[in-house]
Amino acid sequence: MATIQDVARLAKVSISSVSNVLNGRTERLRPDTAERIQQAIQLLGYRPNQAARQLKTGKMPVIGLLVPSTANPFYGQIAAALESYAQTRHGYRVMLCNTHRDRALEARMLEDLSGFGVAAAILLSSFDDERHVEDAVARGLAVISYDRAPGTAGNRGIDHVYADNVEAGRLAAQHLIDHGHRRLAFVMPAGRTNSRDRKIQGFLRAAGQAAEPVSAQVYEGRAITAYGDSELADIGYELGQRLAAETAAPTGVVTVNDTLAMGLMAGLRAAGKRVPEDVSVVGMDNMVLAAFTSPPLTSIAMPVEPMAQAMVDRAVLRITEPDAPAEQLRFDPALVPRESVSPPPAAQPSGSRA
Amino acid sequence: MATIQDVARLAKVSISSVSNVLNGRTERLRPDTAERIQQAIQLLGYRPNQAARQLKTGKMPVIGLLVPSTANPFYGQIAAALESYAQTRHGYRVMLCNTHRDRALEARMLEDLSGFGVAAAILLSSFDDERHVEDAVARGLAVISYDRAPGTAGNRGIDHVYADNVEAGRLAAQHLIDHGHRRLAFVMPAGRTNSRDRKIQGFLRAAGQAAEPVSAQVYEGRAITAYGDSELADIGYELGQRLAAETAAPTGVVTVNDTLAMGLMAGLRAAGKRVPEDVSVVGMDNMVLAAFTSPPLTSIAMPVEPMAQAMVDRAVLRITEPDAPAEQLRFDPALVPRESVSPPPAAQPSGSRA
Repeated sequence: MATIQDVARLAKVSISSVSNVLNGRTERLRPDTAERIQQAIQLLGYRPNQAARQLKTGKMPVIGLLVPSTANPFYGQIAAALESYAQTRHGYRVMLCNTHRDRALEARMLEDLSGFGVAAAILLSSFDDERHVEDAVARGLAVISYDRAPGTAGNRGIDHVYADNVEAGRLAAQHLIDHGHRRLAFVMPAGRTNSRDRKIQGFLRAAGQAAEPVSAQVYEGRAITAYGDSELADIGYELGQRLAAETAAPTGVVTVNDTLAMGLMAGLRAAGKRVPEDVSVVGMDNMVLAAFTSPPLTSIAMPVEPMAQAMVDRAVLRITEPDAPAEQLRFDPALVPRESVSPPPAAQPSGSRA
Repeated sequence: MATIQDVARLAKVSISSVSNVLNGRTERLRPDTAERIQQAIQLLGYRPNQAARQLKTGKMPVIGLLVPSTANPFYGQIAAALESYAQTRHGYRVMLCNTHRDRALEARMLEDLSGFGVAAAILLSSFDDERHVEDAVARGLAVISYDRAPGTAGNRGIDHVYADNVEAGRLAAQHLIDHGHRRLAFVMPAGRTNSRDRKIQGFLRAAGQAAEPVSAQVYEGRAITAYGDSELADIGYELGQRLAAETAAPTGVVTVNDTLAMGLMAGLRAAGKRVPEDVSVVGMDNMVLAAFTSPPLTSIAMPVEPMAQAMVDRAVLRITEPDAPAEQLRFDPALVPRESVSPPPAAQPSGSRA
């Protein structure tokens, strides 16, 4: 069986250069060097044995990733960013678990990961408390929790990587207020989560601090069921129809995410309302497709790549240094203006249909 | 350390009932029975040890999943369907690899899986030949290949699960022809793949068999680069602007997938063309968001759930029975008519802008 030393010798490079190729860090090498190393690997039939690596270090180079569902385009995007970075930067693999926002399933998946010898998990959860997670931490699993600000339910050894959702809600509402809107709505599926609560908090804060009186209401659609995040657009569609049917309906709407915003715009359209002439919409996440909706969706960008990288870095650190203290890493959202926001109908009578 | 027998005894159920709960098959149990088992598991602190299971059977209950990128909403949807079914039905976990349509990365990831002791991989590739895959198969990895009809490049021990892409292309073109279109286009990124070739084949067949002469052209945009599938909508946007600028432009367009269709519609719109009044569009995949675009996108549905289940079933079978012969499983696509197709401008002069 060929060793990494054999490969280095044949390719006339250092062991760390071979290691770079094996871990996908070819950007550090000259293309012909990388090519020579690849040829040596093939010629010798060298295969890094992860099981052996595990036995030697006692650590599986694997991170667990729990997401509500990769069928939600935003989570699919995060999963891609996390996995690619884990592989390229650290040579780690990712074990994927779709939790469908089911607390028992989340708890069982965390247990399963320990059973597989996986020592760290990145958790994109939607539950307001972390008790079931703390059980896993107590058993020795390092957990990196996404998008849940610390402090609400203790912080017992769990890393938190999160966007400033209060600021995200504030930015979205302020953008509408700046365009002249005075009747605002925040729309979301039924059920409070930490990140939803914080978005609402920022939304209400902007309304409360406006120079003129601004009404700010929260609309909850139905809850996401077992079918999972593929329902988000449906829920948005229903909310769009509901808003369109109201008298004195809000003219400016902030949605909890872009997928729901796409459904909302379709529902408004089906009910005869135009976006943005009748109703302005601000989404959140700035998912890739937000630039291609009709009209293109103004959205609050969450810094996906830096957050994904921070989560992976923390997970690897906690695996290699289990005693490292948990950290809280906050990232700033940013407004991406597109074409789904305009002044409200009252301020532009020629554009109003009512 | 508690055993599964201890749990069964405490909950007063059979071991297979406990196993059902552990593997997420609670639909087979009465809710109160499932609850009692969960309580016994918690009370005893029972934790199924997958590493022990692996040592005992020599088989890791893990399937590798290679996709171009879960940032592509369609692949995110497939990844969710695969992982949930693997877990619920078989108690298997999924190790996720985003290949970014990079052949060397695909080959290395397949090697890595073997290194981890993973015995089967589901491969959603975009390469026309399977030589790098056959190397992995020769090393003993069972490979289930998605969306690549067998026969083009041999079939050496690789299972194929695929949609009938010839029929998908034919259905899409025929739908446009039935609405009166005589100038058709098939649009896609640069670069041929097995599935693209077959979609084009069906597209051209429908045009060739039409009662009246139909022109049918294939438009290639730029290729997907290392940034991966998040570029698909951009490529569609560029193609939309290109089509809009042509004289005697096609009036009916079939896109290789829905994400590209969303970009195409945005590009057409930005160039002053209306969908469907000026240009009709048929997407492929019927991704969840296709129902929420403006206009809602007519698309060819691929049977994601049954295909995902078939791939997982085959992977588990090939792990438990390595000598089982490879199989070819074909699934039928179906047209989902929405609002992005109408008669062409010539056939509805009042709707034409030209």
